[in-house]
Amino acid sequence: MPELRQNRFTKEWVIIATERAKRPEEMVVKREAKTPPQFVASCPFCPGNEHLTPPEIMRLPGGAPGGEWDVRVFPNKFSALSRNLQPERTVQRSHRRINGFGIHDVIVDTPNHALTTGLMPEEHVAQVLRCYKNRYVELSVDPRIAHITIFKNHGVDAGTSLEHPHSQLIASPVISTQVRQRMLEAIRHWDEFGECVFCMAIAEELAEGSRIVLATPHFVALEPYASATPFATHIYPRRHMASFGFIADAEIEDLAHVLRTILATIYRGLNNPDFNYAIRTAPHECAMVGYYHWYLSVIPRLTRVAGFELGSGTFINTVLPEAAAEFLRNQTVEAAPLPQSRSAI
Amino acid sequence: MPELRQNRFTKEWVIIATERAKRPEEMVVKREAKTPPQFVASCPFCPGNEHLTPPEIMRLPGGAPGGEWDVRVFPNKFSALSRNLQPERTVQRSHRRINGFGIHDVIVDTPNHALTTGLMPEEHVAQVLRCYKNRYVELSVDPRIAHITIFKNHGVDAGTSLEHPHSQLIASPVISTQVRQRMLEAIRHWDEFGECVFCMAIAEELAEGSRIVLATPHFVALEPYASATPFATHIYPRRHMASFGFIADAEIEDLAHVLRTILATIYRGLNNPDFNYAIRTAPHECAMVGYYHWYLSVIPRLTRVAGFELGSGTFINTVLPEAAAEFLRNQTVEAAPLPQSRSAI
Repeated sequence: MPELRQNRFTKEWVIIATERAKRPEEMVVKREAKTPPQFVASCPFCPGNEHLTPPEIMRLPGGAPGGEWDVRVFPNKFSALSRNLQPERTVQRSHRRINGFGIHDVIVDTPNHALTTGLMPEEHVAQVLRCYKNRYVELSVDPRIAHITIFKNHGVDAGTSLEHPHSQLIASPVISTQVRQRMLEAIRHWDEFGECVFCMAIAEELAEGSRIVLATPHFVALEPYASATPFATHIYPRRHMASFGFIADAEIEDLAHVLRTILATIYRGLNNPDFNYAIRTAPHECAMVGYYHWYLSVIPRLTRVAGFELGSGTFINTVLPEAAAEFLRNQTVEAAPLPQSRSAI
Repeated sequence: MPELRQNRFTKEWVIIATERAKRPEEMVVKREAKTPPQFVASCPFCPGNEHLTPPEIMRLPGGAPGGEWDVRVFPNKFSALSRNLQPERTVQRSHRRINGFGIHDVIVDTPNHALTTGLMPEEHVAQVLRCYKNRYVELSVDPRIAHITIFKNHGVDAGTSLEHPHSQLIASPVISTQVRQRMLEAIRHWDEFGECVFCMAIAEELAEGSRIVLATPHFVALEPYASATPFATHIYPRRHMASFGFIADAEIEDLAHVLRTILATIYRGLNNPDFNYAIRTAPHECAMVGYYHWYLSVIPRLTRVAGFELGSGTFINTVLPEAAAEFLRNQTVEAAPLPQSRSAI
């Protein structure tokens, strides 16, 4: 029998459509998984083409012999926002606008054109995450910035236009309504029960077990109870932290292991689907609050949003979250390859 | 310079990315527009295959000689919800669920497999709309139902699985958070200004003019000021009405003209893009309120949602709404063909 489940963080309802339910195996991408070449001469993100990108903001030096860099950060050439402005708000009758201040960075994850996150050595994933934290902390203190989103698009269906593995960061002068609503719901929970709703949910999920994909000393990866789309996976820090900016070194290493394992599992289990991930963090002004909890959301793009979702805001999910969790748990992911020439550092 | 614009109904911000902006012409679908055949022997929605669908709920008899029906309604064979249940809510710790009660109808828009809405005679579009109203009013009084969404998916990118032109209706036992939030914002506006925020916005847009696509005696079609995606078009009734259930006969005929014109414009101007439309109405329990206003939202599917949108809830739109409105206004749409053999009725 189908059921409606309520997302405990947004109060949004999701239809789990068991009548049209698919076994997890049916969601495996049908197309042939293609492996791009490791180097593409015309790719602006490949080594040797550094001059094709805007001036570098930061780089993590290369660990491999001959490698100039492991990770590079620079402004997005096709930036959605302009970084050299003061945000100014205009209210004309009911038209409210802010000039387009904002920061839009590109983070090139690796010099290797073919190395998607699920195939990287864990230590390299940790480098990428260190880079995220670095930029996050640096930009958080800018008084013009209200909120920062770090995200990744992998594949055309996930909205990417460049194949070379990269992430992006957008720092915006406003807090989106989506973020605001999640925070308001979390405040209500705090006021009613005196606890972080996320901490509570993580504890409940661990005790129950059926939606857990992976649990490590510092993180818990799970399929949300009211997951809106098949195989959407949330990775929560066990320690209460409202802001991603507070992630500690040991936690970065552990998150690299968890993120790499989840993405390797999805890569192998679902045949390299297009996917997004995004870090959902409290705005910096709320970094210290007890009621909010950052997490990383991984979203394989296996289905299309249709008119019902657009019209009503309610999603129909055709894969039972418990079945998705079991499927992901049962995949065998090879151990992460040892970082190449790491001993040379 | 890019800018951030605030949606006045949801308070959501949208980035209008003028730096990466596209001229409207650049959004035209590149693939060859294919015209499907008028009849497909294996299509369960084509005439003669009525036995392949679940038992009919209603039909509008055919106007053309030999035509058995103009529009047919029956339960979705792959229904997301089950219609023969009493909705029952279960709260187990923080897991809230309702058994999957709901109604999921298919409305076959036309016997003609090739006749997408933008190519239909206006009188036939009116028939489809009459069917919507009929089912809407019929289901509204069911005490198990909280909210009804009527929508259409056209094309694979818009989430359709069957090519034959059809619409759908989903009646759900809950009001979605998205609908709730829009209503709460509208209530706040009412409490502050004593007016319907939609009525106010329509008047402002008509006075300003730059985002209007089409204005008729009963309806106004416009590009929203803070449109989240290129060419998203809202069609508002001029008369204050919270619920779609109150649409009058003359308004149905006018809406048929407006909807058909907008879809014909998009079909010709953008080369038959995949699209969705949906009717966003107040729930029946709020049918009489002064603060809410139903409308029909048309969403061409020209772009992909990426990690930033998923992670932050903020959309990036690369087409200026004013440019989109001008592009749509400047398309020449042939007059709707006369309904075939209408005189035979």
